[in-house]
Amino acid sequence: MKYALLRLNNRDFWVRLEGDQAFELSSAPWESEARDVRRVAFDSETKFLPPCTPTKIVCVGKNYREHVKELHPGEEAPAEPLLFLKPPSALLPPDGIILMPPESQRVDFEGELGVVIGRKLSRPSLDEARAGIFGYTPANDVTARDLQKKDGQWTRGKGFDTFCPVGPYLSTEDPGKGMITTRVNGQVRQQSPLSLMVHSPAEIVRYVAGIMTLLPGDLILTGTPEGVGPLGDGDVVEVEIEGIGVLRNSVKARG
Amino acid sequence: MKYALLRLNNRDFWVRLEGDQAFELSSAPWESEARDVRRVAFDSETKFLPPCTPTKIVCVGKNYREHVKELHPGEEAPAEPLLFLKPPSALLPPDGIILMPPESQRVDFEGELGVVIGRKLSRPSLDEARAGIFGYTPANDVTARDLQKKDGQWTRGKGFDTFCPVGPYLSTEDPGKGMITTRVNGQVRQQSPLSLMVHSPAEIVRYVAGIMTLLPGDLILTGTPEGVGPLGDGDVVEVEIEGIGVLRNSVKARG
Repeated sequence: MKYALLRLNNRDFWVRLEGDQAFELSSAPWESEARDVRRVAFDSETKFLPPCTPTKIVCVGKNYREHVKELHPGEEAPAEPLLFLKPPSALLPPDGIILMPPESQRVDFEGELGVVIGRKLSRPSLDEARAGIFGYTPANDVTARDLQKKDGQWTRGKGFDTFCPVGPYLSTEDPGKGMITTRVNGQVRQQSPLSLMVHSPAEIVRYVAGIMTLLPGDLILTGTPEGVGPLGDGDVVEVEIEGIGVLRNSVKARG
Repeated sequence: MKYALLRLNNRDFWVRLEGDQAFELSSAPWESEARDVRRVAFDSETKFLPPCTPTKIVCVGKNYREHVKELHPGEEAPAEPLLFLKPPSALLPPDGIILMPPESQRVDFEGELGVVIGRKLSRPSLDEARAGIFGYTPANDVTARDLQKKDGQWTRGKGFDTFCPVGPYLSTEDPGKGMITTRVNGQVRQQSPLSLMVHSPAEIVRYVAGIMTLLPGDLILTGTPEGVGPLGDGDVVEVEIEGIGVLRNSVKARG
């Protein structure tokens, strides 16, 4: 099943997608009482929002071996997921514009699989963690690479407004061994089977929720494969998760 | 003026404190329409909550020179605030119990001045940043020191549930050159004038909101002075901000 969070006339609501039809839901799709309310017709005013409502965005670094090699030659992927946070203020809808801050000379794309949590999880077993994943969505962990390196802590380099594009679709189907592909201006820049992750989504969720309680709507980014690179003013960047959809954003230098 | 967020009979509401009287407010105190609703009598069931409603908790590291010396000998305090995030799930009310996770061998207290934001701030001037601060509250940036060092990124070491005690009082009065004092089992462990901060609260807020949009209720922790040290099972830790109040929490080893 696929879902999306829409905004129309200043009202935000979830829809269930079926073929080319959309049905408004009475609540977030992970809530047990969610049911169809009415059929929705899309028009040019309909805007897709990130399909999540996170109290926190937890991200994993160094979760594909080839990406560790390209950024940290000689280093092994960590035995446990390496965590960092992006603030919810960084969320950007599909079609939103990634703003490159003037204080950075290098803003990179990082295509990633996003995981949206469907139930409260605190110190879960692996099975409970797996069952607590509601769905999957494309995401872009946009990173000011120079500021990330300068600070040591990644919060500033990863935390600017617009640095977390997500969406448009939230799929409850595990993308399993599907591909993740990132394109810049139509050219493939990252392409990897999701199965090359060092730590699987369920393992990551178990690990994270062993530290901090996860809540419905929370978002986890599962790391980026090799091929990261810089964005420039006017670029269009796409992250595609096979079977789920394409997240597309344009890029603009902020004066 | 002093405020607190209370929970009684599963209902959360803000109060304005005047002498030994408390008046329920119609909304969060930073909202322009907030007004007194009724007088509230405290009883043994009344629970204080962290006096903030953060969409994010932004923290500053290395913001007192003597603390930089004790943890990073030979290093200078950074020219710009060094930022990291704690997840809102780490919030702990006054009187709540700090749970030491079994995977850490060293959990430290870090007494800090907390700043609560009162209006939306995006790339503000220093004056706008200063005006966007609603109030001040005691906070404890509890840290699993060994995990902080092991990971490099501070997210796990700083992010466990119960690792962000805050409150009980939110004061709109700038504590200025007042003292911050941390006690463990009644013994003073940290004591410093707040004026020894490298970056002032207004400078920090300007810097943070130049990166990520701040929203009303967001919480900023402004760094800890020297004297940090470990907590043990059964300890009672207090953070006092002169003129505002005392945040008191007990500590328990989680089995």
